Amino acid sequence: MAQISHTVHVALGERAYDILIGPDLLDHAGAILGEKFPGCRYGIVTDTEVARAQLPRLLASLDKAGLAHQTITVPAGESTKSWEHVQIVVEGLLAAKLERNDLVIALGGGVVGDLAGFAASITRRGMDFVQMPTSLLAQVDSSVGGKTGINSPHGKNLVGAFHQPKLVLADLSALDTLSPRQFAAGYAEVVKYGLIDDPEFFEWLEANHAEIFAGGPARGEAIARCCAHKARVVIEDERETGVRALLNLGHTFGHALEKDTGYSDRLLHGEGVSIGMVLAHTFSNRLGLAPGQDAGRVAAHLRKSGLPTTLADIPGSLGSTETLMAAIAQDKKVSRGALTFILTRGIGQAFIEKNVDPAKVSAFLEEMRKA
Amino acid sequence: MAQISHTVHVALGERAYDILIGPDLLDHAGAILGEKFPGCRYGIVTDTEVARAQLPRLLASLDKAGLAHQTITVPAGESTKSWEHVQIVVEGLLAAKLERNDLVIALGGGVVGDLAGFAASITRRGMDFVQMPTSLLAQVDSSVGGKTGINSPHGKNLVGAFHQPKLVLADLSALDTLSPRQFAAGYAEVVKYGLIDDPEFFEWLEANHAEIFAGGPARGEAIARCCAHKARVVIEDERETGVRALLNLGHTFGHALEKDTGYSDRLLHGEGVSIGMVLAHTFSNRLGLAPGQDAGRVAAHLRKSGLPTTLADIPGSLGSTETLMAAIAQDKKVSRGALTFILTRGIGQAFIEKNVDPAKVSAFLEEMRKA
Repeated sequence: MAQISHTVHVALGERAYDILIGPDLLDHAGAILGEKFPGCRYGIVTDTEVARAQLPRLLASLDKAGLAHQTITVPAGESTKSWEHVQIVVEGLLAAKLERNDLVIALGGGVVGDLAGFAASITRRGMDFVQMPTSLLAQVDSSVGGKTGINSPHGKNLVGAFHQPKLVLADLSALDTLSPRQFAAGYAEVVKYGLIDDPEFFEWLEANHAEIFAGGPARGEAIARCCAHKARVVIEDERETGVRALLNLGHTFGHALEKDTGYSDRLLHGEGVSIGMVLAHTFSNRLGLAPGQDAGRVAAHLRKSGLPTTLADIPGSLGSTETLMAAIAQDKKVSRGALTFILTRGIGQAFIEKNVDPAKVSAFLEEMRKA
Repeated sequence: MAQISHTVHVALGERAYDILIGPDLLDHAGAILGEKFPGCRYGIVTDTEVARAQLPRLLASLDKAGLAHQTITVPAGESTKSWEHVQIVVEGLLAAKLERNDLVIALGGGVVGDLAGFAASITRRGMDFVQMPTSLLAQVDSSVGGKTGINSPHGKNLVGAFHQPKLVLADLSALDTLSPRQFAAGYAEVVKYGLIDDPEFFEWLEANHAEIFAGGPARGEAIARCCAHKARVVIEDERETGVRALLNLGHTFGHALEKDTGYSDRLLHGEGVSIGMVLAHTFSNRLGLAPGQDAGRVAAHLRKSGLPTTLADIPGSLGSTETLMAAIAQDKKVSRGALTFILTRGIGQAFIEKNVDPAKVSAFLEEMRKA
């Protein structure tokens, strides 16, 4: 029997689903799926790295449960979130003759989840899918809430769909195979939930930091608390017409930096978010909104986690401030030409500001480049 | 003022919209849009042929209303419903810096509507769009109901999304520029509505055939009745889990023939549907379900409209029966391996049969090839 340490229900009416968290769920995935989705066949989408580390466990459990499956493997890395690869995955699902009521499994980190979820959403005008996130980032953030998509030359995640999974299986043991850098990148999104509106959680993270990084019970608890937080937000605002935008804290700056570094190994998504969150706190301070010591406390906690926190921490040289501003202006969180940012009045007090003066952002970035 | 001869409301709750039908709506589109969607900018998607025949009227009316717009033109023809062109349209919308609350306009026939609607559905995870159908087929069928998508090497419409438009403007004068062949192809879908469950409408079509083809008031009435019919079905079953499948009458055979002829000028979609409807009636007769004279009456009416009704009417040689069967098996309307067909007990008495024996279909196709 699978050991399920936490269950989070995402109450989205006819699109409701459960997030199951436990130490060995991939080894029991076949039994769980066979009971929940009788008669289905499975198209597994994964990447080369996860295929090596986790796929054998999933295949063994599907075989044991007698479930038919076919695997589509894509290259690891953010550049896989492309037109080329969504086409490969969709045509692969069609070639496998999966039908509208069969299931797609996204086995991997955020890239695989976003890509496979999007592919599922447009195959036969919408196939159901199951998220099996294997990175910390995917377990606490990208696998929950139904945002799927790929990147465009014009910016990150500009092509995609809202498509909720039917189930999320977060296997804690999968995290043991992550590199420290990957784990830390995911941890940036954990910290984000505290910074948005839960200062008590941020304090709890400061107190339990060692145990979370070492893999004790606090790790599972942190993941469950993040999922519960995200589920609340998604239930309130599935399509991001309001409060869901708070989840983008640090992401407008972060996306611009990711774009500037070519979505490459130079800066992982979570690393961009880490720098972006520090910038959002510091920018809010410069605007007279937030105390300076909060930005310092945030930066200290992220640095302790091995994360970059300043523009200077990014290896190589950055593009011009104009280039970064162009990337910010092309971000999805733009409405009728005005810049929208998630700003803050301090730790746990983030808010959506729809009318940020581009000149102030530009001047702030100039200052940060020289810092 | 725009003259609106018929209005059909599609009551889909928060996705509800109107279909406006009138003689000169493209010339008044700017005024209608400006009032309904204040402050929006427009990304127009059209094809080379429609750009020549209709685009100047639309642009003039948008300019007159002071609405900002940018046009993306794709090649005319079914082969434009491809990965290549959906990518071109999406990246074009992003390059035009259209925002999530701006609007995409699909100006053209079924190909443009399906392509532009799908592109809108995945740009910034979903932009709204307006259908401006310029072919008879698009006005009575593809512009209503939210099915959007492209073709795959594995089959027609296998990639796409359900995405309802915000408004449909059907300009009757646009039909005057269609070739007789294109008009006839669209008329096949008009006849379909009678054959499904409205024998009185089929009789009315037999009686008013000349006026519909000549462009009298019966043409607008026929279009409005088709839209109302389709709207009723879509309201009842938006995602085709049940009765909506009836709209596929003639389409399983038709799609297989279209695939076999390479989605080319050899067989237009409506022509495939015309042959497919006759085959569905004849096959139902062979199965002992429907009287033989109904198949004859259907074929006679379609032939009178200039439409092909037999396999022998398709220019060039067809693939083997095995090839056609493979295409039929790959159709979306397959569930757990059993073949689903829309069969009939006679004119206006179509029904969904989920358990059709592939051997009987194969034998029937063999017979028809020799006929």
